[in-house]
Amino acid sequence: MNTLSVPQVISTQDLLKHWQGHRALTRRVIEAFPEKDFFEFSIAGMRTFAKLTDELLAIAAPALKGIVNRQVLPFTEKETENLTTKAQYLERWDRDTKEINDNWEKLSIEDFSESFNLFGQYEFPIIQNIFYFIDNEVHHRGQGYVYLRALGIEPPFFWER
Amino acid sequence: MNTLSVPQVISTQDLLKHWQGHRALTRRVIEAFPEKDFFEFSIAGMRTFAKLTDELLAIAAPALKGIVNRQVLPFTEKETENLTTKAQYLERWDRDTKEINDNWEKLSIEDFSESFNLFGQYEFPIIQNIFYFIDNEVHHRGQGYVYLRALGIEPPFFWER
Repeated sequence: MNTLSVPQVISTQDLLKHWQGHRALTRRVIEAFPEKDFFEFSIAGMRTFAKLTDELLAIAAPALKGIVNRQVLPFTEKETENLTTKAQYLERWDRDTKEINDNWEKLSIEDFSESFNLFGQYEFPIIQNIFYFIDNEVHHRGQGYVYLRALGIEPPFFWER
Repeated sequence: MNTLSVPQVISTQDLLKHWQGHRALTRRVIEAFPEKDFFEFSIAGMRTFAKLTDELLAIAAPALKGIVNRQVLPFTEKETENLTTKAQYLERWDRDTKEINDNWEKLSIEDFSESFNLFGQYEFPIIQNIFYFIDNEVHHRGQGYVYLRALGIEPPFFWER
């Protein structure tokens, strides 16, 4: 399939690069938290950054796998419930980075406009599902920036990917 | 130009809809702040949500206008420095929503891969500039969610656009 010669708003490879760039920044935010604060600090009764990371990990790689296999699975944070150190979270993060790269290769450009019922709850075109993965991560990471600031820690530069 | 028959990761119209959906949610976040807190509340010495909104307004419509006209202008928050009420911010927000829609029509699909030196500082393909507008808004809005929670206010549902 030759799509390179056709003008695109964004290519599939550039969208993956965009997503993984955000994931690399989120990884830096996890790293920036002191071990204890990653699991314990929060503001106004919100989730800790570890809990927010549970959600991000429960979405990205599993959701993309579901899309690629057209297999509708419920949302679950069960996979990370036994992680107790930042190092374990980062290891899982990196494993998922590879899994995302591998599964991305299985997407064709035609797939992005097809509908998929994400977690059996959100029936949208696949491109919208993927934008949701990215936006939701940016949203929660923005909250992580406030936690870091409140802890007196300089967050990573937003442009750094 | 017939691009509709060609598979796309995302169409130009759907990308606009995605962006404006986020802008509609940010508008709801502005609305959710009590008048005084919009201008005064912050956490850990960060900018108030009014100041963050200054930045968002200084980017979105002016940057897209610059892109469409291929006119490199410096970043400035001067345009909103005289706004003193939430109502004025919302009015400016709505004016910019229309301006964005109008200028978007002037973008061709070929433009998205062309390079543009945003604010004379960030030389990237136009699609990356536009993703930056969206991501930066989601990032700062996520911070606004923490402010609202800290104020005891339920933020709008993330899915609401």
